[in-house]
Amino acid sequence: MHIEVIANIGEARSDEFLHKTVIVIDVLRATSTIITALMNGSRGVVPVDTVIKAKELAKEDDLLGGERYCKKIPGFDFGNSPLEYTREAVHGKRIILTTTNGTRGIQKAIKADRVLAGAIINGRASALAAIELKRDTVIVCAGTQDVFSLEDGICAGLILDEIADLLGEPHMITNDFGLAMRGCYLEAKSHLFETILACSNGKKMKKSGFLADVELCSKMNLTDCVPVLEHDQMVPYGR
Amino acid sequence: MHIEVIANIGEARSDEFLHKTVIVIDVLRATSTIITALMNGSRGVVPVDTVIKAKELAKEDDLLGGERYCKKIPGFDFGNSPLEYTREAVHGKRIILTTTNGTRGIQKAIKADRVLAGAIINGRASALAAIELKRDTVIVCAGTQDVFSLEDGICAGLILDEIADLLGEPHMITNDFGLAMRGCYLEAKSHLFETILACSNGKKMKKSGFLADVELCSKMNLTDCVPVLEHDQMVPYGR
Repeated sequence: MHIEVIANIGEARSDEFLHKTVIVIDVLRATSTIITALMNGSRGVVPVDTVIKAKELAKEDDLLGGERYCKKIPGFDFGNSPLEYTREAVHGKRIILTTTNGTRGIQKAIKADRVLAGAIINGRASALAAIELKRDTVIVCAGTQDVFSLEDGICAGLILDEIADLLGEPHMITNDFGLAMRGCYLEAKSHLFETILACSNGKKMKKSGFLADVELCSKMNLTDCVPVLEHDQMVPYGR
Repeated sequence: MHIEVIANIGEARSDEFLHKTVIVIDVLRATSTIITALMNGSRGVVPVDTVIKAKELAKEDDLLGGERYCKKIPGFDFGNSPLEYTREAVHGKRIILTTTNGTRGIQKAIKADRVLAGAIINGRASALAAIELKRDTVIVCAGTQDVFSLEDGICAGLILDEIADLLGEPHMITNDFGLAMRGCYLEAKSHLFETILACSNGKKMKKSGFLADVELCSKMNLTDCVPVLEHDQMVPYGR
C-alpha cells in the first residue's frame, strides 16, 4: 500500500487526489472535533470554508460550529473545542462547521475517491479504514496557514505505524516525509501530550485556555469512529 | 537561540536570510563532498549552479567536480562522490563544483550574513560554528528537486540536538518542523545508516553503485571542518 504524506494544505494539489483515499488531519482541532461530534451521535457534519456559507446552509434544526483565530464565531452554537460537542448537545443533529485550516483541507480533497478525517483519537481506526478502501492513500497534514504543525505530523506518523503493524512492514510504502513523521511519532509516543504542548499550536491553545482540548486531542485511539465525506457532509464510515 | 528549519530549497525565500546564519544541508552528497574536500586540504570549493558557469570559471590549475542525475559530468575531474576527493587529489587545489540541489541551495542563501555547509559528518562542528556566530539561524534542507529528503531532515535534527546539548535545552528554540526533525533524528540515531539506506536517495545511491557513499555520509561527527562561504568560495570556518 502506497501512502504519501503532505506537510500542509498549501502543498496539496487537488488533481493528485483523483482515485485515491485522502485522510485529512487537523488534530488541533477541526478533525478531532468532527470525530467527537459523530462519535456522540451527530447525524452529520458539513465542513464549509466561510462563515457566510455556514449561515446560509444552516436550517432551523441545525447547529452552527466553528472558530476564527481560535475563538467562537458570534451567533454560533459552538466554537471548535471537541469538549463542547457532547452527546446531550449534538445527538441526532446536523452540524455546519467552519474552521481556519481543517475544513479548508477537506474542501481541497474533494476530488479524491474517499475523504476521511483522521486525528490522534482515531488513528488506528483511520488506518483500518484506509486499508479497507484498498486505494493509494494521501495523508494531508492541515497545518496552520500553510505552515507545518507538529501535532498533525505526529498523527500522520501514528497512522503509518498502525498501517505497517496491520499489513506488515514491507507492505507500508511511504515517501521520505512520511518516513520522517513515523520516526517522529515513534520518538514521541511515550510522551505525546508533553510533546504537543511544547509545539506552536499546543502553546497557543494553552495560552487561550484550551489545555483540556490538547489533553483530549493527544489521546491515542480513543474511538473507532472515522468520519467519511458523503456528498457534502461527513458521516461515520462503515455505518 | 532561534533556529528555523526549512524542508526544501523551493520553500526557502532569500529575503528571510538577511542578517542570519544559514546552514545548507545536502547530505547525499553536495555538502558531504564540500566538507570532505576542504578537510583534505582543498584551498576552496566554488559552488556554481550550471555546468557552463563551472567551465567558464575554471582556471588551468583548478579541478572541476559535479554531477547531473547522480552521474559525473563529461570532461570533469570528479563526480559528486566524497570518496573521490582524497588528500592526494585535492590538496592545495581550488575546486569548481556544480550539483543538482546542494550548490543551488548555497546560491539561494547568498543574502545571509554567513552561509555554512552542514552534513552528518560535521553535525556537532556545524552546531558549534552557528553558536559562535551569535545570529538567528536558518537550516535549509536542500532536498531533491524541491521535495523533502529524509537524510537532510535527520541531519537538521542532529544539529538541533547538538545545539540543545551545548546551550542547554531552554536556549534552543525551533519551529514545529525543526521539532519534528529532532524527534526523527533521536529515533534514528542508533541506526542511521539503515534508516538513510531505506529512504528515497539512499535507495537511489545503492542502485547507482554508491553504497560506500551512503555509509560515509551517515557517519556522525567525523570532522570539525565546517565550510563557510567567503565571497564566491567555501573555505574552512575559523582558520
